[in-house]
Amino acid sequence: MYKVKVGKKILSANEEYAALNSQFLTEHKKLCLNMISSPGSGKTAILARTITELKGKIRIGVIEGDIQTEIDAERIRAAGAAAVQINTDGACHLSALQVNSALKKLPVEELDLIFIENVGNLVCPSTFELGETAKVAVLSVPEGDDKPAKYPAIFARAKALLINKVDLLEAVDFDIERAKADVMKLNRDIKIFPVSAKTGQGFGDWCNWLLELTGK
Amino acid sequence: MYKVKVGKKILSANEEYAALNSQFLTEHKKLCLNMISSPGSGKTAILARTITELKGKIRIGVIEGDIQTEIDAERIRAAGAAAVQINTDGACHLSALQVNSALKKLPVEELDLIFIENVGNLVCPSTFELGETAKVAVLSVPEGDDKPAKYPAIFARAKALLINKVDLLEAVDFDIERAKADVMKLNRDIKIFPVSAKTGQGFGDWCNWLLELTGK
Repeated sequence: MYKVKVGKKILSANEEYAALNSQFLTEHKKLCLNMISSPGSGKTAILARTITELKGKIRIGVIEGDIQTEIDAERIRAAGAAAVQINTDGACHLSALQVNSALKKLPVEELDLIFIENVGNLVCPSTFELGETAKVAVLSVPEGDDKPAKYPAIFARAKALLINKVDLLEAVDFDIERAKADVMKLNRDIKIFPVSAKTGQGFGDWCNWLLELTGK
Repeated sequence: MYKVKVGKKILSANEEYAALNSQFLTEHKKLCLNMISSPGSGKTAILARTITELKGKIRIGVIEGDIQTEIDAERIRAAGAAAVQINTDGACHLSALQVNSALKKLPVEELDLIFIENVGNLVCPSTFELGETAKVAVLSVPEGDDKPAKYPAIFARAKALLINKVDLLEAVDFDIERAKADVMKLNRDIKIFPVSAKTGQGFGDWCNWLLELTGK
């Protein structure tokens, strides 16, 4: 019996498009952050405030992923940034092919930083590479401090975590130190930013981190 | 050219197990509700309070679905009900086979009502039948009133919707009438219960509905 050794990893179609996207971003020297969280944790509100706070400093574009509706892209455009909406029509995560098409519709040359807002889902998007520079997780206070232990995949893979809606800390039972400790157990190098997209609390540190990342 | 007509639908493995579960529940005259929502909307807190409020009236058992940890089953047992924990080990929804195994571990004969708490995910669990009597959706107020429009599948399929965390209505921007109207557009027959698992608000109507369903 002959054994055939395959030396090169066979890539899935998604991985192939992710590699193309990564190459495109590297060639154009653009940073791209893939935002992942549960539905309603405040990804769009965070992006809208980030765009406002960094106006004149970083030029931001957004790829919006949703199952249905153009609601989120409209909120981003109202905040003053270019946005391309992808509707997945039922699918639970964005694919690298969808991001590949969306990148062609953004004025990439005019941008410093591209955010991808993935479909609201704490599970599936964490295992589909889009070719992004890094993943950013969002966890909102009303979701509960047990989520890093219960849904570890995204917290283990993200470069940064925004703990959003800290303005609700007194109204709900959320131990921020427990959440941080559970995340650090999964990922020692993660940057954690407690923020409120509603009040602006914590956005100084988050925006400084983005300025640093983009070399601005 | 011959055409072959296949009169019988070919079932997937999941559908076959779902059919078995449905048959088992019908034969044993047991009601089974499949609870579906985003992570952190309060499914476990709702179940714990429901068990407490219906103590002595309805005997409840729970199948707990989580990616990792036994946290939720422990909370249910502390509330005084039988619970079987399923860990999906990364999978984004429960399968009918997992529910089939869990049903065998519950003292079904001693129960009137079985809840399945699905993995926290507003997307994937809505399209995987488990053989349940009906689906129940949960949407929590901090997630935002745009969720029925953005994630329509579960709201179109559920027999009931709990709008949880109404104690936070004043702290967040959530238009309960907009959410209800969007849900009714998808599903005219759905029962909607605004509740707070924290304060107990609205649990009278929800528990009466469960008493009616179980014929108690």
